[in-house]
Amino acid sequence: MLNIENIIDRIRELIENGDNTQLRAELESYHSADLADIFQELKPEERLVCITNINEELASDVIEYLTPQLQVEILGDIDENLASRLVSKLPHDDAADVLGNMEEDETEAFLENLPQKFSSEVQELLTYNEDTAGGIMNPLVLTVYDNMTVKEALETIRIKAEKENMELYYAYVVDKNDHLVGVLSLRTLITTPVHLNIEDIMIKDIVKVHVDDYQDHIADVFMKYQFNALPVVDLYDRLKGIVTWDDAQDIVEEETTDEILQSSGIVTDLGDDDDDILTGSIGHAMKARIPWLFITLIGEFIAVTITNRYDKTFTALPVIAAFMPLLAGLGGNIGTQSITLMVRGMSTGQITLSSGWHYILRETLTGLSIGAIFGFLVMLVTWGWKNNVELGIIVGAAMSLNMTIATMIGTCTPLVLKKMKIDPAVASGPVIATTIDVIGLAIYLTMVTWYLISF
Amino acid sequence: MLNIENIIDRIRELIENGDNTQLRAELESYHSADLADIFQELKPEERLVCITNINEELASDVIEYLTPQLQVEILGDIDENLASRLVSKLPHDDAADVLGNMEEDETEAFLENLPQKFSSEVQELLTYNEDTAGGIMNPLVLTVYDNMTVKEALETIRIKAEKENMELYYAYVVDKNDHLVGVLSLRTLITTPVHLNIEDIMIKDIVKVHVDDYQDHIADVFMKYQFNALPVVDLYDRLKGIVTWDDAQDIVEEETTDEILQSSGIVTDLGDDDDDILTGSIGHAMKARIPWLFITLIGEFIAVTITNRYDKTFTALPVIAAFMPLLAGLGGNIGTQSITLMVRGMSTGQITLSSGWHYILRETLTGLSIGAIFGFLVMLVTWGWKNNVELGIIVGAAMSLNMTIATMIGTCTPLVLKKMKIDPAVASGPVIATTIDVIGLAIYLTMVTWYLISF
Repeated sequence: MLNIENIIDRIRELIENGDNTQLRAELESYHSADLADIFQELKPEERLVCITNINEELASDVIEYLTPQLQVEILGDIDENLASRLVSKLPHDDAADVLGNMEEDETEAFLENLPQKFSSEVQELLTYNEDTAGGIMNPLVLTVYDNMTVKEALETIRIKAEKENMELYYAYVVDKNDHLVGVLSLRTLITTPVHLNIEDIMIKDIVKVHVDDYQDHIADVFMKYQFNALPVVDLYDRLKGIVTWDDAQDIVEEETTDEILQSSGIVTDLGDDDDDILTGSIGHAMKARIPWLFITLIGEFIAVTITNRYDKTFTALPVIAAFMPLLAGLGGNIGTQSITLMVRGMSTGQITLSSGWHYILRETLTGLSIGAIFGFLVMLVTWGWKNNVELGIIVGAAMSLNMTIATMIGTCTPLVLKKMKIDPAVASGPVIATTIDVIGLAIYLTMVTWYLISF
Repeated sequence: MLNIENIIDRIRELIENGDNTQLRAELESYHSADLADIFQELKPEERLVCITNINEELASDVIEYLTPQLQVEILGDIDENLASRLVSKLPHDDAADVLGNMEEDETEAFLENLPQKFSSEVQELLTYNEDTAGGIMNPLVLTVYDNMTVKEALETIRIKAEKENMELYYAYVVDKNDHLVGVLSLRTLITTPVHLNIEDIMIKDIVKVHVDDYQDHIADVFMKYQFNALPVVDLYDRLKGIVTWDDAQDIVEEETTDEILQSSGIVTDLGDDDDDILTGSIGHAMKARIPWLFITLIGEFIAVTITNRYDKTFTALPVIAAFMPLLAGLGGNIGTQSITLMVRGMSTGQITLSSGWHYILRETLTGLSIGAIFGFLVMLVTWGWKNNVELGIIVGAAMSLNMTIATMIGTCTPLVLKKMKIDPAVASGPVIATTIDVIGLAIYLTMVTWYLISF
């Protein structure tokens, strides 16, 4: 990969010198994906100089690779005719994404300025929910008819691929009413005798998705079958577009981010427009973060009332209070390890409900072994520190028990949630951590009070 | 997607009835990816009946989609001649993965049984580190020579694609010494006049990876440029194979799993063979989990010694101890939210070091606002519960301060680690949680002792 910092220094120097010929030559020597990375780091006024100094094909490619915010920002800042030309060079689905991220009046203005056919095709894409196949697909598909011969199909592909800037993955076969009836790999087309009929060589069991299918389903289909592209059909089985692997990749990344954020107690589906926690308003970020914090608050107040019942213990032996963070911290930590292993294992498909028992046993054994080791360590240290063997034994035993139980709760809860058809990633983290806190403290305080104070 | 449970019931019935013709018809009506899902749920003896009852092409496709453990299990259980035939039908890279997962003597036995050419090609793949491009690539590449015409190239492709079961993405152009000199999309080949020379139409700026490049680098290159396939070259720039998007997808999933596990304090790169935490030995799982737990143990012992200095506070006002879990729980929770947002934002590229300040400010504001709300709530509840306004104010204020500081620590630490070129996902979670615990308790105990006890 590139050393971006050096390149940016060089570009800044060329901009300051006003040497546009050299600047253009420098910029055009990079791949558009690299330029997008470089633009990300430049100041807005520097970006403008750069984008207007490279050829329009490249500028449009760069825009395709930029983040949504930067796309909107740059297209808003440059001359509106240039902006329209750049948008019209984007693939349809990317153009629709860019326009969908603008203010409504800006989108309208663009749609009026764009070439008629392109504009109406993009407008149709904008009518679909952006989280469904319709909102993600590219409507430009390579189609051939079922009554063609291989020779005619190859000729059709040659003409279509030359006219429209279209990616070639598979050729989709439609009947005269545009119904999807088959699919052909380019490999089959190239290696089949040219006089054969398409109907006779096409694959008729087609894996496809529907325009209204949600993106998580699309990602699942992609990951399972590992196709390069999937056809998208409407209610009447008419071919409307294709979704390609890079779209699926974006979906997977988005879903993974949601899973990770949810497991740390952040709500990701608030359903408002302002839906990015890192770039939206602070009010939005607060709405995403407060719900599970509030549930933690309630849970920890239970811990407070339980702990408060042992006030005589603290008065009698205040060191008992000092060990509480140790118990809670290690229980929380080992419990989180178990939750994470289970949730991730279920989301990659390695752990299924039917193999769940096996993992519960396995994790409990692991928790028991680690608990024993740490309990022993804590016993030794406490004994040495306080010169009190009884205290050492009780704290150590409570630690062992606490870690074992934390492991079991962390392992079982995601499985139970899954069984109840609740997404474990959404509900697990904060609730389980609080539960472990409450149970751990209750066990510890009961044990110490029983053995050290009452006896 | 399919309703697997019903299908499995039907298949079980056919197996019991011994109706092999019907069983075969039923099984062969599914896509190989679906069959792999079905096999996953069957018992070992049922799987054997199924795999030997379908045609060998399909059986080999199914094996390609199975998990590594099942691949090894099934190939070990069936007749060894059949096993060799199935392996020889796999793509080279998958065959190498399967053989690489077996015991050494099993691998040897297979290599002897496989067709000579296939065996030696797979054997070469096995010499590469399995985490590098060499270990992932497929050595069957579609190549044409730079001195061909388009017509000759198309003819070559037709013959090669027919002879070898090869995926078509791009045609790679090599010189007579096999050096990679250019790349051509199939679209260009199909739409270019057939008398032109390959040399004149090929793209010469090639994005490629080296056989010894590690998989995280390969995934980065894929995600950045969004190609369907990348060529792999050796030290002398000779073309050795291709890596395709589905390989990249597997790498991304593996890296994401590592990132998620690491952030919960699980060590993923222990470097031993037995390297899956869910399926390896319990000893391995313990080695993966103990290191960060041990660091937490040390950190929490610091918390214990700090807390222990306030023993007079606990004796005087034991309810002080009861609030400790509340402070630690909520501080930990909001801190984890911040860590997760930052680590994930950096790993998707949304947060860069240069935009770091912006996020520190943003998160601090968010922490301050949420801290104020929760501090106020805690004040009210504590005041009402204990009928002590002073206690309510102090606990509420400590809560506000604690949540704000936890947010700041959770936001800054990943950025500082990144700046120091340490992977924030590896080091963040447990250490930050413990730090927040220690600082939060120190602040709270100092405040309550100062205001409630000393005054």
